Amino acid sequence: MKKTLKKVKKASKTANLLSSDIKNELLKQMANELIKKKDDILKANKIDLKQARENKLSPALIDRLLLDDKRIEAMSNSLNEIAAQEDPVGKTLATKILDNGLKIQKVSVSIGVIAIIYESRPNVTSDTAGLCLKSGNACVLKGGKEAKYSNEIIANILRGVLEKNKLPKDIISLFGGSREEVGELIKQEKYIDLIIPRGGEGLVKFISKNSLVPVIKHDKGVCHLYIDQNAHIDKSLDVTINAKCQRPGVCNAIETLLVHKDIAQEFLPKLKAKLDEIGVELRGCKKTMDIIDVKKATKSDWDSEYLANILSIRVVKSIKQAIKHISKHGSMHSEAIMTQNKYSAQLFLALVDASCVYVNASTRFTDGGVFGLGAEIGISTNKLHARGPVGARHLTTYKYKIYGNGQARD
Amino acid sequence: MKKTLKKVKKASKTANLLSSDIKNELLKQMANELIKKKDDILKANKIDLKQARENKLSPALIDRLLLDDKRIEAMSNSLNEIAAQEDPVGKTLATKILDNGLKIQKVSVSIGVIAIIYESRPNVTSDTAGLCLKSGNACVLKGGKEAKYSNEIIANILRGVLEKNKLPKDIISLFGGSREEVGELIKQEKYIDLIIPRGGEGLVKFISKNSLVPVIKHDKGVCHLYIDQNAHIDKSLDVTINAKCQRPGVCNAIETLLVHKDIAQEFLPKLKAKLDEIGVELRGCKKTMDIIDVKKATKSDWDSEYLANILSIRVVKSIKQAIKHISKHGSMHSEAIMTQNKYSAQLFLALVDASCVYVNASTRFTDGGVFGLGAEIGISTNKLHARGPVGARHLTTYKYKIYGNGQARD
Repeated sequence: MKKTLKKVKKASKTANLLSSDIKNELLKQMANELIKKKDDILKANKIDLKQARENKLSPALIDRLLLDDKRIEAMSNSLNEIAAQEDPVGKTLATKILDNGLKIQKVSVSIGVIAIIYESRPNVTSDTAGLCLKSGNACVLKGGKEAKYSNEIIANILRGVLEKNKLPKDIISLFGGSREEVGELIKQEKYIDLIIPRGGEGLVKFISKNSLVPVIKHDKGVCHLYIDQNAHIDKSLDVTINAKCQRPGVCNAIETLLVHKDIAQEFLPKLKAKLDEIGVELRGCKKTMDIIDVKKATKSDWDSEYLANILSIRVVKSIKQAIKHISKHGSMHSEAIMTQNKYSAQLFLALVDASCVYVNASTRFTDGGVFGLGAEIGISTNKLHARGPVGARHLTTYKYKIYGNGQARD
Repeated sequence: MKKTLKKVKKASKTANLLSSDIKNELLKQMANELIKKKDDILKANKIDLKQARENKLSPALIDRLLLDDKRIEAMSNSLNEIAAQEDPVGKTLATKILDNGLKIQKVSVSIGVIAIIYESRPNVTSDTAGLCLKSGNACVLKGGKEAKYSNEIIANILRGVLEKNKLPKDIISLFGGSREEVGELIKQEKYIDLIIPRGGEGLVKFISKNSLVPVIKHDKGVCHLYIDQNAHIDKSLDVTINAKCQRPGVCNAIETLLVHKDIAQEFLPKLKAKLDEIGVELRGCKKTMDIIDVKKATKSDWDSEYLANILSIRVVKSIKQAIKHISKHGSMHSEAIMTQNKYSAQLFLALVDASCVYVNASTRFTDGGVFGLGAEIGISTNKLHARGPVGARHLTTYKYKIYGNGQARD
């Protein structure tokens, strides 16, 4: 592994220096190649799918693994969109000229080598490689073994484009193998500058705890919607249903609804009628059970990311109790309040510690595309460096370039 | 420890919300109190100094520990300067309004609880507390036990100001004790959001390797100056002497000089004559020894932060070899090139991976004050979040505040 990583580190020096034009041209060529070699990709994907079925993976996992014409076109489009974005590297962020003539320029630069550890979805391979290339970084792609053949062919197509352009193909590197490799990768602080884990809670926790390389984690999304006593009932119904049901399997969907006691009596029966229609399983606290007929929520419900049509409901006595609940159980991802009271809105925005805090809107908007970043490499639940949707611009850091004429310090 | 940290975390919620006016008023009161209670501080400092002498600490360490009227005034001034700075919290960094009316606002916010682990110098106690307060963070100050009494009285004076203003004094917390406490602190990811270690190489390495809390390390400064073949000789002499000798005990002084072979014959004898006068010990590679009479540099010299009037010298055959040397031995702090060749300058700026890269100037300028940050909490040798001098503005992160009117995602 060290031998490969050494080559990646070296390749990263080339990646750092690529001009915007060259990077964009490469991305467009990669987008074209994916379409041209669609049949090869589908063939490789079939092998993964066959094994997945043999290994009895869940239908949800198999769906994530599946590639078809439409999905490959989406991968290709995503690379073209990344090409169309502004180059995040080489931007002058600030300039200061000292009295002695020294010019201090703060300039955005690439990070170096970024390792992404992810599961199942093969589109992450091309999205991630594209975002890293755009930001002038080399990448180490560590996909799940269930997507081995799909990831391999996609990475090889992208590497082929680098090679054809006489660039080091190690700018994009794939590690296909085992879980054990992860344990090794996270110790390579000499060769890797940043690790981004996406995937199951266990994987993310393991990496965060043990990595010697800085980590920006894409942790689970335990998101809440709080219905304040002054909330608009109909809008609250719409937003709750959207935040829970529009796509329950994603991290920015809500898992828990918090309802102020003074509105619960009116709101909960109306909500239950609608959610029953859709077929959402409800689990409630004792006070919820007094108002509507739901299963009892257990302790573990408040920390669960269901990723399914299940919603836990708690009636709270105040906005402060709602905020306390979120601070205890939330994953600092996306949190929302429905209220017509400006003071409540301000309090919630100020006190809820999450990457995205919403007033009167669905948490489902937390997304790189919506936020204007284009494709995203994940949603950071870290507090430092990058928070929320992580796009190419977050895969940069800065350095100070200082221009003198022989200046010495007094 | 957990009990105290729980209180600090709670206090941080208050700190996060303080208005600029209140924070600045507190900082000014703290500045005044330090002057008013100067005699108490000096008395406590005498106890530390007495013990330091009894324990036979080095004169350099005792000098760092020492407080006098002038140094206390400087501490007080520093707090006033921090008060005069712009508030880094609550700034709108970007705004985007979607077609559906959703307003996405990226706003700077405090980080939460910041722990600083440092040694000897008691002024770090007030500087750090001031910077954390300015940026709306609570701080955990873990000073060295050699400065126990000095740190305690300073922290208590600052805490007294918080208390007098009916604010939780745990916004500023001091852990005075043992090294073992450090091992415990770095596991408290539930209560601490960021750890900044300043101090010896061993301490910084230990914390970086073992911390579960994100770390911004203030690592050693192994800084280089490279004299290119086209360098201006006289300016290069001045800058070399300044970078090495103006204050050899600090991290932005150079430790190693790299000299292009084509200029070494002319440059090195002139340099040696000047450095001999000042009394700088020289250690050179074989090629250096062929030109001037110096001790032989051993392998460990290239990685040493001397913090003293010692300079290692290596003759290199090209700018590429110089950059390779820096990439192997540098600590990503401050690196400089002397050259009159624009291409060499651009190459060096682009390829040297350090927080501050200089062309034709001394590395000694790397400093929060010089860079316009005011006081600094350290010089980050990390690549992510903050690089180079770390001021109050780097002790913030951001969140997205999103304002809607019932929007749901299609």
